Amino acid sequence: MSRFLSGEAARLAPYTPGEQPQDQQYIKLNTNESPFPPAPKVIKAISRAELLKLNLYSDPACGQLVDAIAKRYEMQRSNVITGNGSDEILGFAFRAFCGEGKGVAYADITYGFYRAQTALFGLDATVIPLREDFTLNVDDYMDFPGTIVIANPNAPTGMAVPRPEIQRLLEADPDRVVIVDEAYVDFGAESCVPMIYRYDNLLVVQTMSKSRSLAGGRVGYALGSPELISALNRVKYSFNPYNVNRLSLIAGAAAVEDEAYFQKCTGAIQGNREWTVRELERLGFTVLPSQANFVFAKSDRISGGDLYRKLKENGILVRWWADSGRIQDFVRITIGSLEQMVALVDEVSRLLDDL
Amino acid sequence: MSRFLSGEAARLAPYTPGEQPQDQQYIKLNTNESPFPPAPKVIKAISRAELLKLNLYSDPACGQLVDAIAKRYEMQRSNVITGNGSDEILGFAFRAFCGEGKGVAYADITYGFYRAQTALFGLDATVIPLREDFTLNVDDYMDFPGTIVIANPNAPTGMAVPRPEIQRLLEADPDRVVIVDEAYVDFGAESCVPMIYRYDNLLVVQTMSKSRSLAGGRVGYALGSPELISALNRVKYSFNPYNVNRLSLIAGAAAVEDEAYFQKCTGAIQGNREWTVRELERLGFTVLPSQANFVFAKSDRISGGDLYRKLKENGILVRWWADSGRIQDFVRITIGSLEQMVALVDEVSRLLDDL
Repeated sequence: MSRFLSGEAARLAPYTPGEQPQDQQYIKLNTNESPFPPAPKVIKAISRAELLKLNLYSDPACGQLVDAIAKRYEMQRSNVITGNGSDEILGFAFRAFCGEGKGVAYADITYGFYRAQTALFGLDATVIPLREDFTLNVDDYMDFPGTIVIANPNAPTGMAVPRPEIQRLLEADPDRVVIVDEAYVDFGAESCVPMIYRYDNLLVVQTMSKSRSLAGGRVGYALGSPELISALNRVKYSFNPYNVNRLSLIAGAAAVEDEAYFQKCTGAIQGNREWTVRELERLGFTVLPSQANFVFAKSDRISGGDLYRKLKENGILVRWWADSGRIQDFVRITIGSLEQMVALVDEVSRLLDDL
Repeated sequence: MSRFLSGEAARLAPYTPGEQPQDQQYIKLNTNESPFPPAPKVIKAISRAELLKLNLYSDPACGQLVDAIAKRYEMQRSNVITGNGSDEILGFAFRAFCGEGKGVAYADITYGFYRAQTALFGLDATVIPLREDFTLNVDDYMDFPGTIVIANPNAPTGMAVPRPEIQRLLEADPDRVVIVDEAYVDFGAESCVPMIYRYDNLLVVQTMSKSRSLAGGRVGYALGSPELISALNRVKYSFNPYNVNRLSLIAGAAAVEDEAYFQKCTGAIQGNREWTVRELERLGFTVLPSQANFVFAKSDRISGGDLYRKLKENGILVRWWADSGRIQDFVRITIGSLEQMVALVDEVSRLLDDL
């Protein structure tokens, strides 16, 4: 460990993102990107005139983007904050709502980044195991006195908690913040956004990285009561006031305004998901019931690690977590285009035949 | 204060950025942007083909941008980290190198954001007054046991500490990190970058917001020993692994490769600065000796607040800090195009005549 590190920095638990090979030779089904390009409106909006204004700072209040999101979700400007990806928004939320006397609770199997942020802010974390079948039992959280974070649908399982269950958590303690991370909500799950007007302790975090084809643009946002949003802005202005660049502001606003394209893309992904699930089950896989743009699957005939490695050798990247206990034999497969899914299923089938 | 806030969040000291009116009607000399558009290479690099790839994540290692910066400064990839503006990089550095048992020291009059980040990470700050003439006395820092942050040239004064003075600090305690924030170094001051190979405790932070006309692209970076850069990456991967978006990676790399344009722009700003200083002095102003793309000036005939307000009423924005003690009667004026500076001087002259 470097002699220059602070004690806090020495205790960090940095996140390892999925592989992002820069040579682009793989069929990339490992980081839940959309297989579709951004909306035509996005391409059009990033004009030469806008590029020529890059010498000027972006709007720190992110007005144009905040307004577009507020309009789409039928909320007010004061209900929205935008960030450099939803990871940044999650960071703001962990700092705003957790700390001394306020711990944080999340599932044992969920988005791994929560752990990194817990270490970043030196938080007291309560990790609550999912049930054997990977469902989340909200009763396990009912008496937790700190802040609750639920990825819904969950990653990497793809499984969703029904909205009335979240509602029970919100009502059990109105002074407790519940953060619902809806990164994957647009592929068939039920969003908690409509409950925001009723519960001022509900923060919903979303991203344009998956359903809006803007992973490379880094646009995340949260919707919540003005009180919660104002708390997040307090952190933002302490960390990075100009947190969203000009082109991402424009791209994000255009993406959220292109509803038809959004519906078309998310619909196609759901169709491709149903097809993939059927095919994997036909090949003997156990596939968890996913409402996300990925599936979490395992076979009794090949270990998770072997499947991951053999697919990679054959040009297909999926995500696998080594030393991960009860999910060790699963791989997470992003739902891409139908061509990509056909290639995946063909390759898996061939690998199983060769065993 | 909201009942939802953590104790840490309640103690934050959010930064107030300079006004960024979204209607663009002002001659904007208040946030040190470049008056020139980004380099022609930048405009060309953000092609339609690149926009169509926004559905894919950016490279978390920021390889293309890191390599371009390393090449420009004749360093290795391991000497460079890039961020979502230099504010983010400063945040990483405050977390990496300050904390329990390691306080931070900076000047009483300097970039106000250091204070916000000190509060964000709950740091023990030692604020050391500049001399009466606004020069920084490095002897005041010589025995400080924590991390030292020096904006060089300083903001809002524009005054620079000579490199041998920084060198004395680096040598006095090789286990102490010295962060030199060179946001404004490209307008005539002496950079500490050439000392990086000699001192592994030196971190130089730079930005593309001023001299490279990319304020709206949010591209900052730090140069330092592999040990320091690795510590910063530890924080980055705990906070936001995909911290720079695809288009900013491309824009930043193109900007740093367009050396001729960079030289032309920074040369023009220095010429306009000399002209502006002469004219303001002719009007009786005291102007601190600036090596930045702004000047810090005051007149005995009009208060800082009045000058700021009257200029704003007449369509010119400059920066003024209310309740700021000994700098209360100064305004900070960004050096823009010659046309903008002529408009400023004409307006100031008219205001003084009207007194």
